[in-house]
Amino acid sequence: MQTNNASSRILCPHLRGKIMSAEEAAALIPSGVNVGMSGFTGAGYPKAVPSTLAKRIMDANLHGKKFKIGVWTGASTAPELDGALAMVDGVEMRLPYQSDPTCRKRINAGEMEYIDIHLSHVAQFVWGGFLGKLDVAVVEVAGILEDGRLIPSSSVGNNKTWLDQADKIILEVNAWQNPHLEGMHDIYYGTALPPHRKPIPIVKTDDRIGEPYYRIDPNNVIAVVETNKADRNSPFTPPDANSKLIAGHILDFLQHEVKKGRLPANLLPLQSGVGNVANAVMAGLQDGPFENLTAYTEVLQDGMLDLIKCGKLTCASATSFSLSPAALEELNADLPRFKDSIILRPQEISNHPEVIRRLGVIAMNGLIEADIYGNVNSTHIMGTSIMNGIGGSGDFARNAFISIFMTPSSAKGGSVSCIVPMVSHVDHTEHDVQIIVTEQGLADLRGLAPKQRAKVVIEKCAHPNFRPALREYYDRALRYSPGRHTPHLLDEAYTFLPNWVANQTARAA
Amino acid sequence: MQTNNASSRILCPHLRGKIMSAEEAAALIPSGVNVGMSGFTGAGYPKAVPSTLAKRIMDANLHGKKFKIGVWTGASTAPELDGALAMVDGVEMRLPYQSDPTCRKRINAGEMEYIDIHLSHVAQFVWGGFLGKLDVAVVEVAGILEDGRLIPSSSVGNNKTWLDQADKIILEVNAWQNPHLEGMHDIYYGTALPPHRKPIPIVKTDDRIGEPYYRIDPNNVIAVVETNKADRNSPFTPPDANSKLIAGHILDFLQHEVKKGRLPANLLPLQSGVGNVANAVMAGLQDGPFENLTAYTEVLQDGMLDLIKCGKLTCASATSFSLSPAALEELNADLPRFKDSIILRPQEISNHPEVIRRLGVIAMNGLIEADIYGNVNSTHIMGTSIMNGIGGSGDFARNAFISIFMTPSSAKGGSVSCIVPMVSHVDHTEHDVQIIVTEQGLADLRGLAPKQRAKVVIEKCAHPNFRPALREYYDRALRYSPGRHTPHLLDEAYTFLPNWVANQTARAA
Ligand SMILES: CC(C)(COP(=O)(O)OP(=O)(O)OC[C@H]1O[C@@H](n2cnc3c(N)ncnc32)[C@H](O)[C@@H]1OP(=O)(O)O)[C@@H](O)C(=O)NCCC(=O)NCCS
Ligand SMILES: CC(C)(COP(=O)(O)OP(=O)(O)OC[C@H]1O[C@@H](n2cnc3c(N)ncnc32)[C@H](O)[C@@H]1OP(=O)(O)O)[C@@H](O)C(=O)NCCC(=O)NCCS
Repeated sequence: MQTNNASSRILCPHLRGKIMSAEEAAALIPSGVNVGMSGFTGAGYPKAVPSTLAKRIMDANLHGKKFKIGVWTGASTAPELDGALAMVDGVEMRLPYQSDPTCRKRINAGEMEYIDIHLSHVAQFVWGGFLGKLDVAVVEVAGILEDGRLIPSSSVGNNKTWLDQADKIILEVNAWQNPHLEGMHDIYYGTALPPHRKPIPIVKTDDRIGEPYYRIDPNNVIAVVETNKADRNSPFTPPDANSKLIAGHILDFLQHEVKKGRLPANLLPLQSGVGNVANAVMAGLQDGPFENLTAYTEVLQDGMLDLIKCGKLTCASATSFSLSPAALEELNADLPRFKDSIILRPQEISNHPEVIRRLGVIAMNGLIEADIYGNVNSTHIMGTSIMNGIGGSGDFARNAFISIFMTPSSAKGGSVSCIVPMVSHVDHTEHDVQIIVTEQGLADLRGLAPKQRAKVVIEKCAHPNFRPALREYYDRALRYSPGRHTPHLLDEAYTFLPNWVANQTARAA
Repeated sequence: MQTNNASSRILCPHLRGKIMSAEEAAALIPSGVNVGMSGFTGAGYPKAVPSTLAKRIMDANLHGKKFKIGVWTGASTAPELDGALAMVDGVEMRLPYQSDPTCRKRINAGEMEYIDIHLSHVAQFVWGGFLGKLDVAVVEVAGILEDGRLIPSSSVGNNKTWLDQADKIILEVNAWQNPHLEGMHDIYYGTALPPHRKPIPIVKTDDRIGEPYYRIDPNNVIAVVETNKADRNSPFTPPDANSKLIAGHILDFLQHEVKKGRLPANLLPLQSGVGNVANAVMAGLQDGPFENLTAYTEVLQDGMLDLIKCGKLTCASATSFSLSPAALEELNADLPRFKDSIILRPQEISNHPEVIRRLGVIAMNGLIEADIYGNVNSTHIMGTSIMNGIGGSGDFARNAFISIFMTPSSAKGGSVSCIVPMVSHVDHTEHDVQIIVTEQGLADLRGLAPKQRAKVVIEKCAHPNFRPALREYYDRALRYSPGRHTPHLLDEAYTFLPNWVANQTARAA
């Protein structure tokens, strides 16, 4: 199946009979339904039907008709999906993760409901019937076999669940997707609802436990749409100075742990969020002393690909790619070479607590605020506006062998401290955060009680501009707090937040 | 081994040679060491050495010498252990859970360091070397076999880890413990540090995967002390009116889930915290329509024993007993009859995320405060004073098939609302809380976004006396909040807390 022509990728005669335009397919989605769409961090989302549907919704609106759907995905998607549907106010309920500016704006204006869910929970909630009925699946694939099985595209996410659970399936066959993706995926059909669950038999990152295709009932397919369009990919920005400092602290720490005998010489499987800092850590590992690394992670970004290329990373298991256009070009030019080193799995497996804990992953995730006692906010600005969502960070942090959170010590041009007395929203509790790293240094919170943590976090992680104020808060809390296990002055705990004064004043006015 | 005489329970000749008094044994524990003690919710803790050690510490103090140790346990213990050591200010660092009044007072006065840890994490942190060196183990057992293997007593907790990891072992052989306990335990020796971990082969609550004894190196044993003393047991208070109402709401909910096909007719394995409400739920199940129930839980309390007796509960897996004196008497009188239905496991297995998620446990835990968005505080009063600790509630809540939290809607004689705008400490995030129940009603938060949750929590769970104020907060937050995903007025979020005004005034004075 070596072709850039979508039609020639649809080998199943029955499904060839369902080929239609995006407009015709979008017309099959009525208002009020829940739609499960493919897509994870800008890879493998449907390129045609959602934006066409958005236009239909706009038309309905122009005729005074309400038209909204529930949008369920793997994780974040792209402007053609989240952006387009949010723009026309077409989303009643969005889950489980997003990072789209238009979407975010609607959510924070109170115009769109959003449920932020641990990514490992989504499939089981849907199977359990907790989120209501899934009506339609809109899933991008790289091709269709003669017997109707589907070749996954550049992300897996919740696609298996959507295809199993939806009454009606719309497939987008994207000729842009590399045909060599075939065989890279490991779709596990062994999950079940309790009491029928069995152990998930992954004991090494490169264990394949499933099959390379999605199974479907072809009778559920109501439309097949041909596309030829690239994934959204974010350009890669080379690591900045702060990211390099953060990466340096983490690499020093890992070397120290190896020296102390607390980590094997080739470390343990790495998990890392996306973004500048994550890429800097990967870049650091390229020059570092570690060999035979592995990754059990959610997304495969540029830095990991580089590590595979230079032979330092022997296997990366993920649920999606998240590459810059340049890295993607390189990958696509040479995909068969990477096939032995990359496995894409459903997100309930890439993020499964059972597997993450068994493998003993080293988790590295970003944050918005951390507090002096080690609680982490990954999602909310001012405790009230969502940024993206918790994503898989909870799946990894709670079950990791070592749970690391990393951030620049300040945000918004240095005006806001990312180390605060008390986080305004908690996604990761003090029980789940072992290491906090900023460009200033690394706080190792293992084996420390709250008051001991506070000192280390302030002295190692806070920006010098905010350190005195944090020390002062802590000292006064120690003196005046009603309890001294976790000393706090609750009426002052949030005065560090950006626009604190402005917000209070605006309300008083 | 059917005897109440401790000596005759010590069959290993080598270890018989180590028999000494509690005073002699306590004298072998120097200041500054970390001591791993047995004990879980008042069962199976050492009865003699800790209190004798406390007297030694008091003597040292009277002579102007500092004498403190680190105390690690399974969970909470008893006055003879936590109470005695805290009374003489002999604890440098306490982990992972306590519920002792003297201990709590010291911690909240800032005089004792306390690390509150997910109970499933403790063993792996110790094996990983994250908490420092474990120097001494002081473990109660029910007997010693000829070859030196140990018969566990009424709790398992972290004993396997303490016995494996400590250089020096002190054993207390308690003749009070029922000799028929032999064979009831399932001590799993298959755990390992990554990258050597394998699946934990439990697929049903009654699967036995280990052996009934602890293995030790007899050369590490420095003392064997004979005791004959009952476990601390809390008298059972019959369910009060509120607990019965809460239990009623939960039973209605479970029946509804069965009817909807979202739960099997015999439910899924039950987990429940201890206390009045938990016992009321168990009492409700006795009269309810469910048969062939199972439990995969942390502690086995009176209500579960009653369910076993009446044939409704076929198997309970736990790490400890937590029974009233009356229930204990009944159990002890007829232990062999219960042997097929009860398994006691190490707490890293009773609380293992892998097993809990696989089995699909129905988790029911208590709380101190829940907020309108579904975040739960299980540990802190006024965000600053510890009550007990998170215990296993996080292990169960995060990995449960359905995660239920339950509480009376108000505390302190009705003067304090347990439903608040924003919890003052988060142990369970909005991502981990699906059902909140008070005597007022049950809020099913599955599939609801934050603002939808707020309405349900206020209307279903809050006490009518506090409902108007909560509605008012929410309405004003909706209007004035900087973001409207999770509307909040951060400067007012804590004004619901008890003594809020008193505390602010005290500080201003
Ligand atoms: C937390 C998270 C938002 C950080 O993102 P990042 O790209 O690494 O970090 P950035 O420093 O670029 O911050 C992102 C934004 O938050 C803002 N921000 C960060 N800290 C802030 C703070 N304390 N106060 C206000 N704004 C803050 C930044 O200014 C930036 O906003 P902008 O784009 O408008 O300038 C991101 O890691 C995330 O969404 N995490 C949750 C999901 C997750 O961890 N997934 C990992 C895969 S399992
Ligand atoms: C949360 C927890 C303390 C509730 O305990 P409980 O015995 O069910 O409930 P109670 O209503 O008796 O409350 C316990 C105490 O907290 C106080 N309390 C409860 N809610 C309060 C509130 N909102 N504000 C102030 N005090 C509060 C009660 O007054 C009582 O104090 P008192 O003994 O001084 O009167 C208890 O469940 C716990 O420790 N949980 C964490 C560990 C866990 O969940 N383990 C489960 C096994 S896995």
